[in-house]
Amino acid sequence: MTVSFGQRARAGIDRFGPLCVGIDPHPGLLDEWALPQSAAGAREFGLRVVEAAAGRAAFVKPQVSFFERYGSAGFAALERVLAEARASGTLVIADAKRGDIGSTMDAYAAAWLTPGSPLEADAVTASPYLGVGALSGAFELAHRGGKGVFVLAATSNPEGIGLQRSADADARTVAQRVIDEASAVNAACVADGEWGSVGFVIGATVDWHASGIRPFTPVAPILAPGFGYQGARPADARRIFGAMAPAVIMSESRSILSAGSDRIETVIEEHARSAREQDHHE
Amino acid sequence: MTVSFGQRARAGIDRFGPLCVGIDPHPGLLDEWALPQSAAGAREFGLRVVEAAAGRAAFVKPQVSFFERYGSAGFAALERVLAEARASGTLVIADAKRGDIGSTMDAYAAAWLTPGSPLEADAVTASPYLGVGALSGAFELAHRGGKGVFVLAATSNPEGIGLQRSADADARTVAQRVIDEASAVNAACVADGEWGSVGFVIGATVDWHASGIRPFTPVAPILAPGFGYQGARPADARRIFGAMAPAVIMSESRSILSAGSDRIETVIEEHARSAREQDHHE
Repeated sequence: MTVSFGQRARAGIDRFGPLCVGIDPHPGLLDEWALPQSAAGAREFGLRVVEAAAGRAAFVKPQVSFFERYGSAGFAALERVLAEARASGTLVIADAKRGDIGSTMDAYAAAWLTPGSPLEADAVTASPYLGVGALSGAFELAHRGGKGVFVLAATSNPEGIGLQRSADADARTVAQRVIDEASAVNAACVADGEWGSVGFVIGATVDWHASGIRPFTPVAPILAPGFGYQGARPADARRIFGAMAPAVIMSESRSILSAGSDRIETVIEEHARSAREQDHHE
Repeated sequence: MTVSFGQRARAGIDRFGPLCVGIDPHPGLLDEWALPQSAAGAREFGLRVVEAAAGRAAFVKPQVSFFERYGSAGFAALERVLAEARASGTLVIADAKRGDIGSTMDAYAAAWLTPGSPLEADAVTASPYLGVGALSGAFELAHRGGKGVFVLAATSNPEGIGLQRSADADARTVAQRVIDEASAVNAACVADGEWGSVGFVIGATVDWHASGIRPFTPVAPILAPGFGYQGARPADARRIFGAMAPAVIMSESRSILSAGSDRIETVIEEHARSAREQDHHE
């Protein structure tokens, strides 16, 4: 039987703690790492982070845009990074924020979630402007193959507040709607007490009350950007996420990557430890 | 001085009419066209549509997901299709629905809108779940380079209704918010009477009243899927879009592509004519 992504994520957290290491070869970081602004530079950057994260963190999260900017050569670089990460046993969350409908969405899901496809990852992030229901093909493919989908629910950037806090006639916000609709998918597919394949993206610095999000029992992992450079500390996780804290994957990018190639193992080790210690303070 | 995408789009509509030919090499169509389910099949499909559209339609719209499913090889195929379409003088709208924040969004914009980049298109579609303001880097790059961005506003798929009709404290819906915020960007950059670089995606079968969208004076093109196979007819454009009808780009995919490789020139010719005739009935 296929083990669900949720169960694989939970096993990863149990073993290494909740740290997720971003792989963001953006122009400034390539410069800092003395790598060229090219697909080859992005590949070297990604492979180095994958090597440093292996055995130290449960998750890596390549940011697809920084590969896409180099076109097909960038995607070839990303394929190498994804394959090496998966071979090393680290779970790979492709941060692609894809979102479409029908057969178009199915093709995105096929790209990222089909076992054996060139861009195979363990999970992909998805954007629900066209509705959570429009992502159903991705959920089905994920469920069948032990893969995951993280749906954007509430993000901490100020530009998103107006949209995500808009509400329906029952005063349910867009952010809460996404959580409700994605939770319903998990409820239909997951045994009691297990984690499902459909997770959420909720920024660590989101104001839950203002965003109209009610605390919920986690039935899937929550991918939480905003740790490290953006201000949230692992020790804050319990305060921020309450009973959901054990389901939180703490994503850090710049706070780790700015250490540079020489010090990255040490920094991942330290940040993974402090993310784990949050767990022990539960 | 760089000619804006809006002005280029208007010139295209004036010359060929408002038809946009989708390039959707999905599995079923590749079968119908007797092409392999591979990057090479998608490339042949795309090049054939580009050849048939040249001199007959102002716009083609490759659906990125159907190339992405083949990974880097699929993107190499898409690069060929984009380059051939641009060389033929047809305006290319890459239907990618990308959406992110900050430097991540900038990298997507760089991928699709930078002159000389491997995936260079004339315009790209964008998804605003993270807020229209989060797309500002793409708007700036578009404005500088004569490129366009079509922001998803209101789509006709049923799954998106709950989110897009959610409203803020002033009863302004998400769909209307997107239109307002993107219109403000155009207003800041465009001379009176000209079309700007930031267009909208509004499905031809959207219920405007129920979606809380107020008619607006078009200051940029509106990309309208839903013509052809999905039910809207060009003759309906005036009724559906009212005073905005002259700004509408009518996108058709399956209704043209299902003609097959042999008949596609004829069908594009016919559909372009009936789209133009709608214009003459204004």
